[in-house]
Amino acid sequence: MDIVPKTSFPDIRKVAVIHSSKGTVMSVPREDRLVRFYIQIDAVNPDAASGLARHDLKVDDLLDAARAIMFPYTMEAAECAWWSAYRVGQRVANEFARHDRVFLAGDSVHTHSPKAGQGMNTSIQDATYESERKPVAEALINFDRDYLKHFAKQHASNHADFLDAYLKGQRFTTGIGIRYPPSLLITEDVDVQSLQRGLVPGLRLPDFQVVNQSDGVPIRIHQRLRADGKFRILVFPGDVSQEYTMSRLNQFGGWLAKSKLDVEVSLPQGGSGEFFIETITIHSARRADVELEDFHEAFHPWSSRWGWNYWNVYADDESYHDGHGEAYQRCGLDRNHDCVAVVRPDGYISVVCDLENTEAVASFFDTLQPIKAVRPRI
Amino acid sequence: MDIVPKTSFPDIRKVAVIHSSKGTVMSVPREDRLVRFYIQIDAVNPDAASGLARHDLKVDDLLDAARAIMFPYTMEAAECAWWSAYRVGQRVANEFARHDRVFLAGDSVHTHSPKAGQGMNTSIQDATYESERKPVAEALINFDRDYLKHFAKQHASNHADFLDAYLKGQRFTTGIGIRYPPSLLITEDVDVQSLQRGLVPGLRLPDFQVVNQSDGVPIRIHQRLRADGKFRILVFPGDVSQEYTMSRLNQFGGWLAKSKLDVEVSLPQGGSGEFFIETITIHSARRADVELEDFHEAFHPWSSRWGWNYWNVYADDESYHDGHGEAYQRCGLDRNHDCVAVVRPDGYISVVCDLENTEAVASFFDTLQPIKAVRPRI
Repeated sequence: MDIVPKTSFPDIRKVAVIHSSKGTVMSVPREDRLVRFYIQIDAVNPDAASGLARHDLKVDDLLDAARAIMFPYTMEAAECAWWSAYRVGQRVANEFARHDRVFLAGDSVHTHSPKAGQGMNTSIQDATYESERKPVAEALINFDRDYLKHFAKQHASNHADFLDAYLKGQRFTTGIGIRYPPSLLITEDVDVQSLQRGLVPGLRLPDFQVVNQSDGVPIRIHQRLRADGKFRILVFPGDVSQEYTMSRLNQFGGWLAKSKLDVEVSLPQGGSGEFFIETITIHSARRADVELEDFHEAFHPWSSRWGWNYWNVYADDESYHDGHGEAYQRCGLDRNHDCVAVVRPDGYISVVCDLENTEAVASFFDTLQPIKAVRPRI
Repeated sequence: MDIVPKTSFPDIRKVAVIHSSKGTVMSVPREDRLVRFYIQIDAVNPDAASGLARHDLKVDDLLDAARAIMFPYTMEAAECAWWSAYRVGQRVANEFARHDRVFLAGDSVHTHSPKAGQGMNTSIQDATYESERKPVAEALINFDRDYLKHFAKQHASNHADFLDAYLKGQRFTTGIGIRYPPSLLITEDVDVQSLQRGLVPGLRLPDFQVVNQSDGVPIRIHQRLRADGKFRILVFPGDVSQEYTMSRLNQFGGWLAKSKLDVEVSLPQGGSGEFFIETITIHSARRADVELEDFHEAFHPWSSRWGWNYWNVYADDESYHDGHGEAYQRCGLDRNHDCVAVVRPDGYISVVCDLENTEAVASFFDTLQPIKAVRPRI
């Protein structure tokens, strides 16, 4: 239930799980004065959990249950914005797709408790690849079953165990706890050095702030990589204020421009402007020490329709008002070494390799390319 | 004009003023690919400035002028979203109000060039007090006249002078460059120590981030002080994890609760919930070292309708994800000393005094109180 609580419980504006001999209440502060309460009703009155009794429940029953669990703290509702009673079922479907043309996602293929906030987060990502998502749904159901034990009256939960389970849940919510196995879309590490890095094929790209080379505006990389179906080649060239480093980067740019990849590079004679791949360059020099023009055109392509592209080159540098993103550090990269990461349209990493290993990038897209042409069987 | 420029000028995504023998162009990058250009047309063709010629202007005339000024850089418009030609007149009205019941604001009482982005910023603040705003309008007009000189063809502007004028303009835009003189609404410094501080009566309260004591959520103080007509008593008690400091603060709370000020304090028997004044406490202890309950009720009042108020006590502490606001430092305060600032509904500071100087707070509101009852003459 979502209520405005009038309570003497001091931690009501924090996420809290209150476990007493009468059961468990989880409270999550919301916008304005609202707080959401999850109350395990069968822990208070086992009869109420049966099918019919659920429909007989009133909001006062929930309040009474919460009050009993939170005693000696007082609890009243100044206002009730919403409430509902549900029965938790943990189920996973056998298949998420039929004939590669009917696709199921979300509650239609996996149901679990809403307590861990996984519903929408998991379901949106279901719109990707069944081979990867079914194991995730199964892992989520297992997690949910374990997690709910902490809310059962008879379970002697303690703070450390619960915190551990809670943090495990957060890794599902953000997607950073999921690692997809090698497949057409995930290439295992190809360079020995990459093994030391925080960029790992199969994991989601970490989020970090970078600063636009052209206008100094800071942006978080997850916001920059909007879900428009594009693959991205993220290039981390290192400190491009060093002439040698810039020249290595621009060699890579030259290779890109000549390659057969469907990548956004300069379009002297116009063109559709629609590409399968774009490059994002994140260097570790001071932004003021280099100019956009110093970078090969492949990294800031000219379009006869729109002019130069000012939104593909970034610095891992201090911003004017929002601090330093420490992108290299968050990716486990040395500021003086280079690295390339191919990122899928859903934000997961496909390939990690050295800047000179153009072969790894080329062969990943070579293998993938035919998939574009696959048509569903009728 | 607002266009998508296709240009070889490298700094097109920065605010730039380009001064050449052909005149001056100011460019301001906007959302998406747009850039706004201000072009002084008379500098290119003196005849075009006459009344009729202004209406004959076409967007191509503006583009030609910009191109001539920016040469040898190239410039084309991929798209033109908006353009307009205007003549700059600098005028101020004699009066901003009649009979205290007809009030004028914005372009109806002061006109100037739009180049410095002062129009809306100044006009919204006009909705306050004529005695304060007329001198501001006059100062703005004088600033604007000086500022425009930098754009005239015949003016030998240099980078240092222009930057100086530009930064002066920014202080108008944000309001932090305006200092209102002493009046009913502005009490001159009452405590010697206050003279050392960054909180100055007549200046706008600086903006800084603080962290909510109850839920740890960071908020900027300007966002917290929403324009709802309330006066605020901002209390900076220092490090309240020290028992002595907390007890000094709570003495002030006791005084507030017993005072006759129309301040939001606890309402054991209900009440309208509408107040003229609210308190905001910003302490310098670590947030985790104190609890909301440690603070006198006057600082987090109980309402029989809504329960405790969790949104009036803040810590000047590191936030979980958004850094440290350094509120005490930005206000020029010592983290171990106390201070009280009365802030007007428009965000300007009325009184600055020590925590024990309750007399200064009381007498400010005593003098002001009758003003609430004034009715306009018919």
